[in-house]
Amino acid sequence: MAKKKEPAKPAADPSKLKVQDHKTLDALRSLAQEVLDYAERGRAPHIEVPSRSLSNVRFNQSRKIIEMGSGTNRRELFNLAQAKSYMQTLLVSSGCKQLIEQGKTTSIRGMFYLLKHTIEGTREETFETQDECDPIIEDVEVMLDALREELHLYAQKRGEMVGRITIVDKGDEIDCSRMGSGGYGIPSIVEPDIIQFKKCEADFILHVEKDTVWQRFNEDRFWEKNRCILTHGSGQPPRGVRRLLNRLHHELNLPIYCLLDNDPWGYYIYSVIKQGSINLAYESRRMAIPGAKFLGLRSNDFERCQLTPSVQIKLNEQDIKRAKQIAQYPWFASKKAWQKEIDMMLKNGFKLEVESLISKDISYVTETYVPERLEEGVFLD
Amino acid sequence: MAKKKEPAKPAADPSKLKVQDHKTLDALRSLAQEVLDYAERGRAPHIEVPSRSLSNVRFNQSRKIIEMGSGTNRRELFNLAQAKSYMQTLLVSSGCKQLIEQGKTTSIRGMFYLLKHTIEGTREETFETQDECDPIIEDVEVMLDALREELHLYAQKRGEMVGRITIVDKGDEIDCSRMGSGGYGIPSIVEPDIIQFKKCEADFILHVEKDTVWQRFNEDRFWEKNRCILTHGSGQPPRGVRRLLNRLHHELNLPIYCLLDNDPWGYYIYSVIKQGSINLAYESRRMAIPGAKFLGLRSNDFERCQLTPSVQIKLNEQDIKRAKQIAQYPWFASKKAWQKEIDMMLKNGFKLEVESLISKDISYVTETYVPERLEEGVFLD
Repeated sequence: MAKKKEPAKPAADPSKLKVQDHKTLDALRSLAQEVLDYAERGRAPHIEVPSRSLSNVRFNQSRKIIEMGSGTNRRELFNLAQAKSYMQTLLVSSGCKQLIEQGKTTSIRGMFYLLKHTIEGTREETFETQDECDPIIEDVEVMLDALREELHLYAQKRGEMVGRITIVDKGDEIDCSRMGSGGYGIPSIVEPDIIQFKKCEADFILHVEKDTVWQRFNEDRFWEKNRCILTHGSGQPPRGVRRLLNRLHHELNLPIYCLLDNDPWGYYIYSVIKQGSINLAYESRRMAIPGAKFLGLRSNDFERCQLTPSVQIKLNEQDIKRAKQIAQYPWFASKKAWQKEIDMMLKNGFKLEVESLISKDISYVTETYVPERLEEGVFLD
Repeated sequence: MAKKKEPAKPAADPSKLKVQDHKTLDALRSLAQEVLDYAERGRAPHIEVPSRSLSNVRFNQSRKIIEMGSGTNRRELFNLAQAKSYMQTLLVSSGCKQLIEQGKTTSIRGMFYLLKHTIEGTREETFETQDECDPIIEDVEVMLDALREELHLYAQKRGEMVGRITIVDKGDEIDCSRMGSGGYGIPSIVEPDIIQFKKCEADFILHVEKDTVWQRFNEDRFWEKNRCILTHGSGQPPRGVRRLLNRLHHELNLPIYCLLDNDPWGYYIYSVIKQGSINLAYESRRMAIPGAKFLGLRSNDFERCQLTPSVQIKLNEQDIKRAKQIAQYPWFASKKAWQKEIDMMLKNGFKLEVESLISKDISYVTETYVPERLEEGVFLD
């Protein structure tokens, strides 16, 4: 039998809630009110959930981001196939309300445990596994048109920043030009009520794929000499890094240059930073950065930089398949330069990692490669 | 054909080298001198490489760490089976010398690319893949009795720190109690020439397994109320985190409490933090922390905290196998409390994640669970 939960804590002082919190709470309350209204009018309660299926995702040519269409799916309480997901949707909404009212945040794993219990008088669990909870969280995001972060949910925390910017994070002033070799760990939630930009002396942002490459740039104090901000996302950047880059780009007008591997995975990372992802199309509006530029590595770098053949990594079948898929993405398909780029990698038959530039010199990438690319000012868009 | 490399840069001003760098350089030069000596005396050059095989690893009962025995393997130049690895060993040594002399560091991936080339007049590569290079790097570490960090090689960078300590990182003073929600990203190399401890008001260190749990503790400002330092390692902590914990523990006399999942993986993480790992036994001396304590989760927490059965995760076969293996590690085998602990988990038939405590209350873990465990002062050792 399920043990009793501790009594819920009283809500935090509403006067302490942030402006955004009030908006999100209003949206959550409207959702609950609708249920009540249906019940009072003797109608079957239902909710309309914007469809997150591939058929409802499109590339907005003028805004240059992946976004959702207007398709919705109805989810009904009095429908045996939908009753459970209906209940789960309201449960997640109520969990988010609880978080916001208490002024706390948690992970999607935390939310799962917060809500998981045996439904009274049954042997049925509210959620069996995390896989059942995650899509419902995404449903609530799209229904309320709220970023996950606004629902007080955080993602895994990865990625770091150094450079010529001073920010304020929860009231603490952090000078990113005084962060030693370690750097500032980019939070998962970087909304304006948490992070403010205090002083910026940077002319641009250099975003690199890997922490190991970031360490090279930081050790060489690239950001100091080149007046910039230096970030990494440990591979595919997590939400916090993408949202921070988005805010830095739009609010401070900073160009963003991406230094990624010359391989399909590097292309894909760029694609997500720039246009958003197909799976999470609804968040593109506040996460995607259509203005981001691809600085390198380029498929012609092997020749241009006169690299040794020893650093080539042969494309495998998976690479070739992925490269062809990516070339057909609408946002790459319409761009001649990208078609040429991907074609050339396929013709080369090999991929190149950023680290391969070390075969020229330990600091070739920071002292020659990136400065030359910035100097010539030719980027893939 | 291999393209020419850029000419090597002149060595950095030797007066700028750190004390440790001089020691490491001396060891590297002795290694090279030995080769010369053999050649001059007309003998076959060879090196003695301490054996890193399992049979040469033992648990030192008095020092409470896993360490290497005195077994060595001879590696000869004039032995067809050993000539390549002999050459690779000297190549890695020379690569490290280059890094130290230039005052730079790189990743093991960077080292691979730095050294990878086609051997002149042949079609033979110095290293085919990273897998060939990594064990040679480890050989050089043990031969020179130098930490990888002292060879100027860095590992992946993960893990963050906040709390009541001010450190100096490459000359930048960083007050870890003023790091907002993001925290200080723990560097990969935290040796005393890079990181110094300036001011510490902490009474202990709480090390948690996951970044998501760390975020909960930081949001609740646990480190402020409880006068501590809060770290995480994103799972199995990387070398930088382990070495920093080791230094904080030994140099500042701070107790370390680990908050890990109640599962075999949590046990294993604890084992590596405390005694070191079997694979990298040679580094235990400066990485392992025999004084570290296991605060939780404990197998009796389900009863003690009156958790709902919904949060139980059934042990799978792999879990059961791993738990039994770990129970037989010499450093667990001799401890009754650990045997009881692992037995109880096996009898429970389920594992528990730290996040499951959220089923009691969002901040139960920071406001009740950990304070109660610290108050009662009973830890697994």
